[in-house]
Amino acid sequence: MTNSKPSKKAVVLVSGGLDSATCLAIAQQQGFDCHAVSFDYGQRSVSELLAARKVVDAAGVGEHKVIILEMGQLGGSALTDVDITMPEEAADGIPVTYVPARNTVFLSYALAWAEVLAARAIFIGVNAVDYSGYPDCRPEYIAAFQQLINLATKICVEGGSITLETPLIDLNKAEIIKTGIRLGVDYGMTVSCYQADAEGRACGRCDSCRFRKQGFHGAGVDDPTVYR
Amino acid sequence: MTNSKPSKKAVVLVSGGLDSATCLAIAQQQGFDCHAVSFDYGQRSVSELLAARKVVDAAGVGEHKVIILEMGQLGGSALTDVDITMPEEAADGIPVTYVPARNTVFLSYALAWAEVLAARAIFIGVNAVDYSGYPDCRPEYIAAFQQLINLATKICVEGGSITLETPLIDLNKAEIIKTGIRLGVDYGMTVSCYQADAEGRACGRCDSCRFRKQGFHGAGVDDPTVYR
Repeated sequence: MTNSKPSKKAVVLVSGGLDSATCLAIAQQQGFDCHAVSFDYGQRSVSELLAARKVVDAAGVGEHKVIILEMGQLGGSALTDVDITMPEEAADGIPVTYVPARNTVFLSYALAWAEVLAARAIFIGVNAVDYSGYPDCRPEYIAAFQQLINLATKICVEGGSITLETPLIDLNKAEIIKTGIRLGVDYGMTVSCYQADAEGRACGRCDSCRFRKQGFHGAGVDDPTVYR
Repeated sequence: MTNSKPSKKAVVLVSGGLDSATCLAIAQQQGFDCHAVSFDYGQRSVSELLAARKVVDAAGVGEHKVIILEMGQLGGSALTDVDITMPEEAADGIPVTYVPARNTVFLSYALAWAEVLAARAIFIGVNAVDYSGYPDCRPEYIAAFQQLINLATKICVEGGSITLETPLIDLNKAEIIKTGIRLGVDYGMTVSCYQADAEGRACGRCDSCRFRKQGFHGAGVDDPTVYR
């Protein structure tokens, strides 16, 4: 048995949440040989990383790197600092759950790995509809990172390309869920809560829980989330 | 005694080499309260990090973070992989000492820290004259990263700014050395060699050694480098 068609590789950021699980399924459907990367950045919810492992295993992804980042020691966010109170209502502006430069750090690592693998794409499940208003999820941010990729890397300077793919960016949460269900994603494995407990049970009150709950409701799909 | 003028903070990338030591001295001369960051990314030459510590201590910088990055496990460069032969002659194109996305990863971390500190600037000693031709040292790359900063961060979206400063970018090595000497930099502390030994002694043959040697010669300054 031979496979004469060279595989096209992608690096996919997998957090353990609903969006990135859907994003991974889309990348696989598009025929990419996916290499998953998750980040241990001192987030409160370590069950996220266990969920990431389950999602990656269920998708049959061959390679999964979990990169330890010392961002928790920098502080500055309710996601990494238990002394900052987690908001439980929608508020104006960028919320305290914003982690300084988080997606920039994540994407930089993904870019380094993509270049080593000679991957053609990086997939990230950012979304600028049902989201917390983080600046580094917006289309203009993604465009700026693509421009950086084009100038930063040996591959791109020598005529190749690495494309930053954001298939969810314009979808609302219900549309994301409907897409994932169609592609066979088991959302029961995913953890979205900003302060899930060690068993992955969700608080039901943080921003991320609210968007998720509304998403299942809007999609007309039973919510498999276990609330504590 | 009071100091009514609020200090302006900067994050300065310090590698232990000649350029970043000069860059730090320039940032201090400009009145910045400097916070230094170095990266342990699996580089062959660990004496670089010892040199970084000496440079930072000599400059009287209060805070110095050494961030451990798991880039060595990604491979793909003669600087992190001893199985790739270190080139000892100038060659066309981007050399094998290029580390995929290195400056992007370094600057992302510096950006995260700058935002937490509410720093106004990030200083990096990149140089696009006497350099190895790395894409992520060029002015167009720096401009793209500045654009990313403006879109990525809460501080910038809310009307503040973080400026990426590259005071050495247009200087040749001799000009950099003359600037540093004027500012009191002790280049005997710095290590530039891509494959310095544990005592920091230089090979005298790699790209970095060649640029450094020519720089001292061009500046008419005694070369304090210890060669092995």
